[in-house]
This record gives sequence, C-alpha cells and structure tokens, in this order.
Amino acid sequence: MPKVTFLPANVTVEVPAGETVIRAAMKAGVHINASCGGAGVCGKCRVFVEEGEAEGEPLPEGGFKACTLTPKTDLVIRVPVESEVDRRALLRPIGKVATSWLEARGPAEFPLAPILKKYYLELDPPSLENNLPDFPRLETALLAELAKEGVQAQKLDLDWRLLKKLPYVLRKKDFKLTATVFKEDPWPYLLEVEAGDERARFWAVAVDVGTTTVCVQLLDLVSGEVLAETSDYNPQISYGEDVISRIEYARREGALQILQEKILSCLRRLIEELGAQKGVSPQDISFISVAGNTVMSHFLLGLEPRFLRETPYVPVTTRFPYLPADELGLPGGRKARVFLAPCVASYVGGDIVAGVVAAGIAREEPLSLFIDIGTNGEIVVGNQDFLACAACSAGPAFEGGGIKCGMRATLGAIEAVHIDPVTLEPMILTIGNKKPKGICGSGIISLLANLFLEGVIDQSGKYRRDLKHPRIREGRDGYEYVLVWGKDSATGEDIVFTEADIDNLIRAKGAMFAGYQTLLESVGLEINMVERVILAGNFGSFLDLEQAITIGLLPDLPRERFYFIGNASLLGARLAAFSAEAVKEMERVANMMTHFELSAHPGYMDYYVSALFLPHTNIDLFPTVKELLAGREGS
Amino acid sequence: MPKVTFLPANVTVEVPAGETVIRAAMKAGVHINASCGGAGVCGKCRVFVEEGEAEGEPLPEGGFKACTLTPKTDLVIRVPVESEVDRRALLRPIGKVATSWLEARGPAEFPLAPILKKYYLELDPPSLENNLPDFPRLETALLAELAKEGVQAQKLDLDWRLLKKLPYVLRKKDFKLTATVFKEDPWPYLLEVEAGDERARFWAVAVDVGTTTVCVQLLDLVSGEVLAETSDYNPQISYGEDVISRIEYARREGALQILQEKILSCLRRLIEELGAQKGVSPQDISFISVAGNTVMSHFLLGLEPRFLRETPYVPVTTRFPYLPADELGLPGGRKARVFLAPCVASYVGGDIVAGVVAAGIAREEPLSLFIDIGTNGEIVVGNQDFLACAACSAGPAFEGGGIKCGMRATLGAIEAVHIDPVTLEPMILTIGNKKPKGICGSGIISLLANLFLEGVIDQSGKYRRDLKHPRIREGRDGYEYVLVWGKDSATGEDIVFTEADIDNLIRAKGAMFAGYQTLLESVGLEINMVERVILAGNFGSFLDLEQAITIGLLPDLPRERFYFIGNASLLGARLAAFSAEAVKEMERVANMMTHFELSAHPGYMDYYVSALFLPHTNIDLFPTVKELLAGREGS
Repeated sequence: MPKVTFLPANVTVEVPAGETVIRAAMKAGVHINASCGGAGVCGKCRVFVEEGEAEGEPLPEGGFKACTLTPKTDLVIRVPVESEVDRRALLRPIGKVATSWLEARGPAEFPLAPILKKYYLELDPPSLENNLPDFPRLETALLAELAKEGVQAQKLDLDWRLLKKLPYVLRKKDFKLTATVFKEDPWPYLLEVEAGDERARFWAVAVDVGTTTVCVQLLDLVSGEVLAETSDYNPQISYGEDVISRIEYARREGALQILQEKILSCLRRLIEELGAQKGVSPQDISFISVAGNTVMSHFLLGLEPRFLRETPYVPVTTRFPYLPADELGLPGGRKARVFLAPCVASYVGGDIVAGVVAAGIAREEPLSLFIDIGTNGEIVVGNQDFLACAACSAGPAFEGGGIKCGMRATLGAIEAVHIDPVTLEPMILTIGNKKPKGICGSGIISLLANLFLEGVIDQSGKYRRDLKHPRIREGRDGYEYVLVWGKDSATGEDIVFTEADIDNLIRAKGAMFAGYQTLLESVGLEINMVERVILAGNFGSFLDLEQAITIGLLPDLPRERFYFIGNASLLGARLAAFSAEAVKEMERVANMMTHFELSAHPGYMDYYVSALFLPHTNIDLFPTVKELLAGREGS
Repeated sequence: MPKVTFLPANVTVEVPAGETVIRAAMKAGVHINASCGGAGVCGKCRVFVEEGEAEGEPLPEGGFKACTLTPKTDLVIRVPVESEVDRRALLRPIGKVATSWLEARGPAEFPLAPILKKYYLELDPPSLENNLPDFPRLETALLAELAKEGVQAQKLDLDWRLLKKLPYVLRKKDFKLTATVFKEDPWPYLLEVEAGDERARFWAVAVDVGTTTVCVQLLDLVSGEVLAETSDYNPQISYGEDVISRIEYARREGALQILQEKILSCLRRLIEELGAQKGVSPQDISFISVAGNTVMSHFLLGLEPRFLRETPYVPVTTRFPYLPADELGLPGGRKARVFLAPCVASYVGGDIVAGVVAAGIAREEPLSLFIDIGTNGEIVVGNQDFLACAACSAGPAFEGGGIKCGMRATLGAIEAVHIDPVTLEPMILTIGNKKPKGICGSGIISLLANLFLEGVIDQSGKYRRDLKHPRIREGRDGYEYVLVWGKDSATGEDIVFTEADIDNLIRAKGAMFAGYQTLLESVGLEINMVERVILAGNFGSFLDLEQAITIGLLPDLPRERFYFIGNASLLGARLAAFSAEAVKEMERVANMMTHFELSAHPGYMDYYVSALFLPHTNIDLFPTVKELLAGREGS
C-alpha cells in the first residue's frame, strides 16, 4: 500500500490503492477544507504533490483537488497553510479504526461438515433372495454408512412423500443414488434422493436478516466457499424504521402476514439473483441458515411479535425447529431446511448468538466484550466459562435515526467529518464521494467528537453560546452547527447538527455505557478487566475508535484491545451452514448466555444518568480523554 | 334363544330371536325345499308346527312357509316327507360354524393409553422474574408431566406452525391449556394446543381398508368406546375387482392419483357420516388408525404399486411414518396423525399384522394358524416365539370371483345351500331373504360340499355323467348344475354351477391347503400340531366348518380348535388407536413375521398338485371326511 506523508503536519498513513488523498488525510487526522464530500465539485481541497507520482484533477491556480488525487507511488503532500491543522490538532491522536478481528484472528474454526450430508450409495438390486422393500434397502445401506462415521442410529426418518419417487429414483441408475441426510438428533432424516452421483451439487445460503439490511451469501457446501454475496434493504422498512414501529404496525389485521411476506419475498429475490450469477437453481439449495434478531426471527416465521415489547417481554420462542423451506415459501422445496439461529431474549437475538459464535469468544479464555451498536445496542460479556448479555435501549441515533439530518449509511451520507480547530470549518467525506445528503452514524460520531474536542460544545452537549461563528446559530430547533451549506448539499438545504441531536446521541451512548457497566457489575467484573472489545455490525469497521471513546460511546481501554468483526451475524450463519458443530455451538452459546434485563437492575438508572455527559460525569473512567482535554485546556 | 326341533330327523338347534325356521333348518342340516332363497314367493317350503307358538304366513293347503315362520317359543316342526332328509343325510354332521374367538377369548388386551395424549396444564403466567418465552414455558411444564409418567425427554418437538397460535391460546384462558402430545420415539411431539381444559374432546378413527370393503369406526379415546361404525365398498372397485387389476390400471398416466383420491374421498365421506351421527366434527379427530393390505396401503399414500407384482415383489416400504392427516387430505388437520399398520411383504400386509395382534396369538404359547381367505389367502403360523407367514395365490373364487354365477356377499346372494340327497333338489338361503341373484363364497362352499357328498361330482370335481337329472346338464360352458331356475331368480336367468367353476374352486382351496403345508413344513411343523385355527375376515363367521373341511379348504382338525374372529384387521386398527402398546406390538409382530415366498419353495408345487382333489389326493389327511365318504359308500 502506498504511503502518504502530509506536510507540514508530517503525518504519514498507508492507504489502499485507489484511495483518494482526501481520505488519506481524514485517516491521518489532517484537515483539508472540503465541503462537497469528495464529489470533486467545490474545489476547496487544494493540495500540492511534493514527491512521488499521483493522478488527479489539477486546479487552474496550481495543485490538485485532493478528492480526486490518487497515489501511484508513495507521496509527500503539502497542505496549504489556510487548511493546516494548528498545534492543538496535533495533540489529537491519529484517527484509528479497530483492528480487524478476522484479519488478526480469523473466524472461529469449525470443520467443514454440514448438518446435511450427501451420501452416494450403490445398492444391490433386489432379488428373490434379497427382496427387502425399497426404503429399508436404502435405510440399511445408509445406516451402515452412518455407522462408519460413528453415528449409531436405529432408524432413518423421512418425509413420507419421498416414498413416492423412491422406486423410480432407485431404478433410474441401477440402484445407484445420492441420498441427502439431515443429521438431526436423534435419528437421521432422509431429505432427498437423486439417481446417480449428485454429491457435487450441494448448495446452501447464509442470511443475515437485519432490521435495516438483509445480506445473503450463496455457499458451496462441498468446497466450503462463498460463491456470491448480495444485500438489500429489509423491505419491511416501509412499515417502520425500527422494530418497535413494525411491532406496532403488526397489530393491524393482516399486517403480520404482510411483514412476513415482505421479508420472504426479499429473500427469494436475493437468492434467485445469487443463483442466477452462479448458475445454481434456487430449487437446488439444500440449506438456508438464517441469523436475525428476535423480532426479525418472529416476523420471518409469522409469529406474533406483540408480547416481545409488552412487559415482561416474552418471545413466542427462542429456539426454532428446522423448517422445510417450502413451508415458508423459500427456495429448495421440501428437501431444504431452514435453520434459524437461536435467540436469547426479546432483544438479544440470533444475530448476536451467531456473532458470538463467529467471534469464537465463548471458546477462549480472555474476557471479551462483544458490542453490536445498531438500532438497539446488544452487549455480551464473557469467555469460555460464562456469557452474560443485555440489550441497551440505545435507539437508532447511531444509525442516523432521530437525528435531524441523520441518514443511513448510503450514497451521499457524510461518513467522516473533521473540524478545523482554528476556523471551525468542516472537512467532510461522503459515501461514494457524492454531494452530501445527510449524516450517517460514523459521521455523526466524528462530528460530535470534533465539536466536543474543539470546544464548540461543552461536556453536557450544549453549544458554547459565546462563540460567534457563521456556522453556529440558533435555528428553528435551537442551537445548531451548519455542517454543509445548502449550496453544497445534494438537497439544496443546509445540513445541520442540533442540540436536540446531540442530546439524543448522549442518551444513546449513555445507555450503551451504562449497559457495559451494569452488565459487568452483574457478573462481578469491571470494565478494565475486559481484554478484548469486539465491535460487530458494519458500524465497527468505519468507526473512529478515538472519537467513539472521546464521546464515551466506547470504554477508554488500551486501543489494541479493540477489534471490529464486521457482519458477525452473517458470518455465524455461514459457519452454521458449513458445520454441524457450529450449529451445536450456537445452541451451546444460546444456552450459556445469561440475559440481564437492564431496566430491572437497581443500579442501571444511576449509571445511565452518570453517563449523560461527554465523555462521562466521572472523567476518571476516561483517562486518555481526560488527558486530551487537559491538553486542550492547556493550549 | 328358542330351540327348534325338526321331525322326523329329530334334530334340535337354537336360533336367535327373529330367525326364520328355514334358516334354523339349514343350520340343523334339515332339508326343506326352497328355491326362492327365503323370499317367501315360491311356496315350496311347507312345514307344520307341532308344538309351540310361531308367527308366519300360512299356506292354503295347511302348514306355513318355513321362510316366513319365526318362533315365539320353543318349537317342534314337522317337515313333510317329500322334503325329509334320508338316512344318508343324517350321517352328515350338523352344520357347525367355528367358535367366536372374541366371545370365547376376547381381543388381545392392551391398556387404554393411546400414543396421543391430552395434558391439561395450568402454567404460571410470565413475569419479569420468570420471563421464559411461551414455548419453553409450555415445554418445561409438559416435560415435567411426562417425567411423572416415566418419560424422560430432553425436549419437545413440534410443528413450528403451532408457534403461530401459541401466544393467543396461552393468553385466552390465563395460561391454562390443553396440549395434545404425540409420544413418538424418542422425543414427544406437540400436536395441538387448546385454551382451557379440552381433554374430553378426544377422538380417533379406526379404518380397515380392504380391497373390496372399507370399514370405519369412530372411537372415543377417553372412554375407549366405539361410538359408531360404518362401511362401504372400496370405490377403487370400479378400476378393478382385485389388487392385480388395480395395479395394472395404475400404470396409466394419472391413474395412481385417481385410485388414491378414490379411497381418500371414501374415507372422508365415511368419517363425516360417523361424525355427523355422533356430533363429532371431523376436524376434531386426532388419530386415524388404518390397517390395509400392502397394495391398499400403497394406494392410500399414492406410492407406486408396480413393483409389488413384478418379481422379486418389492414394496416401496413396509413401515409407514406417521403422517399428518392434512398431507393426505384426511380430516383432523395438521394435528391429526395417520397411522398405517406395518406390512410384511407385497402380499402380507398391515391387515394381517393387525389381525394377528388383535387375536393375540403372538403373545401366547399355543401354536396358532391364522387364516384370512379373501381375494388372496394369507396365512400365519406361530406363537409367542415365532411367526411365519405366506400369501397363497388363491384367487377370488371364494369371494365369487371367476365363478360364472358368483357374486359378492350382498343382498340376493345365495349364502347357504343344501341338496336333498334323494331328489338332488336344492334348498337355498339368500342374504336379506331376497330373490337369488348369484352365489357368494359361503354358498359356493355349501354347494360344492353338498354336490361332492351327495356324489353328484367326483373327487376330481367332475359331474357324474351317469346321473340323469334335469338339473344336471351340459351347458354352454360344459357340465353344470342348475341351482336356481330362471323363473325363481332375480335376473330371470338360470343360476348354474359349472365344472369350470369347480375347477377354479379346487385350485383355490388347493393353493390354500398347499400353503398351510408348505409354511408349516418350512418351520419344521405339521398340520396336526396346530392347536388353534383362527379364521379372519367376514367369511369366517358364515363358513360352515364341516363343508369347508369336506372340500379340503380347511385342515381336518378337531372342530373345537376352530375359531372365527371376524374383521380382525379393523379390530387391530382400533386397538392401535386406543393403545400405544398395541402400536408397538404391531411393530414387534411385523418384525417377528418371517415371510415365505411359497412359489420359491421347492415342495410347494407338489403340495399344490396333490391338493387338486376333493378333499385331497391323500385322503388320510382328512380322516373325518374319509369316514363320511366311507359311510356314504356303504349306504
């Protein structure tokens, strides 16, 4: 990867090939004025190439647009003085994302041995001396194969309808056939019979059904490879952005069926797309492994979600039987089985269980804290000996929900922000380098951390009333900072960040932090005993660790303890498709997980109230932030 | 029961109330001329009441029509000399049916404990302290109930679709509910949940699917009572009288589905009829217990029957999984389970297994021979230690099939015949006392035995050519005996009994007898070691033992060893509905039964050829018939 050194700050970062210099600067913590999000239209982001080769759009007055400039070799870049960071900014640690858990450690290891297996058998054709009926003939041979693997089964169960085609299948290729067996406890179950050797045609699908996004992977059960991957919004979004509003909607007559059909038809479509890409007929899918939160799992099966949100928060079930795909209208017919990751409680679902299994933290000694910050923050703490979990009512603020100009992390969302300490002018980057439409989670955290660190807002999240700056004003909704002027935005409207937004964010991060504290206390531990913090969800990979710690969203632990794991839920679903042991591990993990209802914990409210401050009322909990602030004060 | 004494023969028989004197005479072996089958139209059956009171139609010349006369007290009846039996007839033992096995012994005993059970549970409603999800809440309580019964299950399986209604059912009556559990091995399976206490509403259906007749009983699973019973012809008859012709028909495109739908719609209709009689909705049926032969079982499930009749005679399966009733389109919905009695081989089916279980012969010491003479004769020999079985290709002769004037045992069928030894005039009785239409099984045996004993046919089944009698003639199909003249028959046509008919019958009974011999020899036993002969099927109850032995259809054993058990298949199906132990016993019996393919046995052909004689080429096998014939010769 090329290295880019920024002058005069003299900071060097590595950037992936094709990355723009403006993104390198954001990563380096070097401020470059940029109001178009990297769209190449505002022309403010002038930089000069002092050493090395780069490609980009030159500006008439000399230099290049940093948002178009990509290194061909290592570069030395000079940032013009008007956009240079002042010395206070140098005190700020270089923006750092957490280490990739998967790159550092890899996913938890399970043998490639799916819970479904295809057996190729060459049976003796029947004769007068050996006139066993067709099914027991097959059963005897299959049980013998299973016995070789150490599976001592007394009988083979089956869907009786297979008996209808069995005689034809047996006789089509002279009693040579492939039998697909589901190794369910305690009796193996015959799912499919095919004439001849069809072992190579063996596919599965892994699905992460998120409240917002649905991700699907097409898997080759023979090679253990991911053949293709796709994702889309969960189409239930049009009936409510979050699970609570969808549960409310589901109370209407027929609405639950609508929500169920929406997600099912989305899955059908995505699976068909993937199949078409790889020449796999959806009817040839044998296994569909799904991880979703408890509410999504209920919707997927059409189960009443109402009691999930009414005290005492009771799911219909947290363990799901394997379902024949055709009973859900999913591809693969009767032979295919749908597996849903077990859930723990109404708000700690199969996505978290799958994630914990994927991370492998329940099989290792070190104490880990697993955090999924989404609409609802879920946290798990534990190791091989115990697991405790809880849901934090964090709300959707970190997904842009309840934030005036918030949006989901899609094209045009401001994903990173830097505020010039001197001019208080912002530098922004948008997803896809489009004109900015709004701010998404990582941008919101950047912005909040910057405004706080530069002293634009105080520890309670209020704008300093004494700062006279055109971007800080009293708007319709109270004090606000104008991040993007209407002329630079995609909508033509100003993109602002209000005190009400900040209040929402402080409550959200406070709920998370109080959650860590309460959960750890419940099991007799303290935050600094946590040896690893694993951040799940797409969020984790974009999150600037320093900023998240600065605002008190993440605990102030040594940075090397932080990892992001990405979509661990999808990864867990994939592991379950590839390995019966991963399925068992999910059951074990779900059983191990002790769920704590935070709101019922006597200390929770105190922790929460204490956390409604930046970073926290007890600054000693955030020693590096304390130091940073002290540096700032001292400047 | 009134006693009727016939003079001058001086024979006394007991007859049930309402029985006619002519039927009493037939039972007593007393000949009364009667050509209208008891329809009261021919006026030939004049008798005089010497003592006692009776009701009936007087004849103008004095006396009464015997076919209309019913005793009100014990009677002494004088038969006019012209219809008196001669002394030869007196040598003939009094017609005797076998003892009723059920009256003498009762059916095999099993505890009233169906494989399905309804549990009434009062669960604790959920609270914050106890917020188990709905299903595990129910599961925990149910497993505790099961544990009290000694069932140690680790989990409860269920149809996932029950989860859809579970939350509503639980909350409808404050977490009081009735759970229907299927105690399948190894995990119990939750079939249904109902709010409140619904234990009393618990019904099943027992079904005997015969090739010709379908019998259905509505059962109360709580009381163990048969609430109602009905039967009808198997509507598949229109596609072939016997299994072979139906298997042939099934080869046509779509024909198997037609045959399946025919039997299923028949069952639906009969179950609805019974339900309507007793106010039980078919949807409230929980269990459908079916016994049928292997071919009928294949048709019921729509399984390919073709290989049942092609060597080496391989069924698709002989063990059937429990099927959800709705998958077959049978009443009871998803909760109801359809049980099919296990089969043994292509031509020894679940009807025989059910019958053996009903008779209880596999749980007792004495050596029993279980015989079902239908389209295909099935025989089982054994006791608690072993069971051997075989199918005899006897053909449908004893059901009237392949007999020129043969018919099934329906209204107007001649069911009993007596031939006057002197005049060779017949006395006939028809089912329902209707004008005769044809001859059914028991009538055919009567006729054959009479013709043989009176010397009208010889031991090879040929009419004696030297007998000059108007009823014996050479017809279109060779020599024949006119049993009913056209003027007395329902059709206006003569009812005749041809040498070809006799030949068919001899081959049929020869196949049966060779079957007994071969099967017994296969297990190292001889016929006279058989301590009980149990005759199953409707046939058994009407069969005149002496006549059946006379023609060599049944072995010549002491008469007290013979029993009839009636529809043992239906009885077995009923036992299985009432008791899980009977289900297990069926599996045990099916596993115990060693099937012998008679045609593959080297000695079978010799036995068969030796049996093509009346009663047998080796007359010493039939000592009482030998004696009878010796008496006849000596007269």
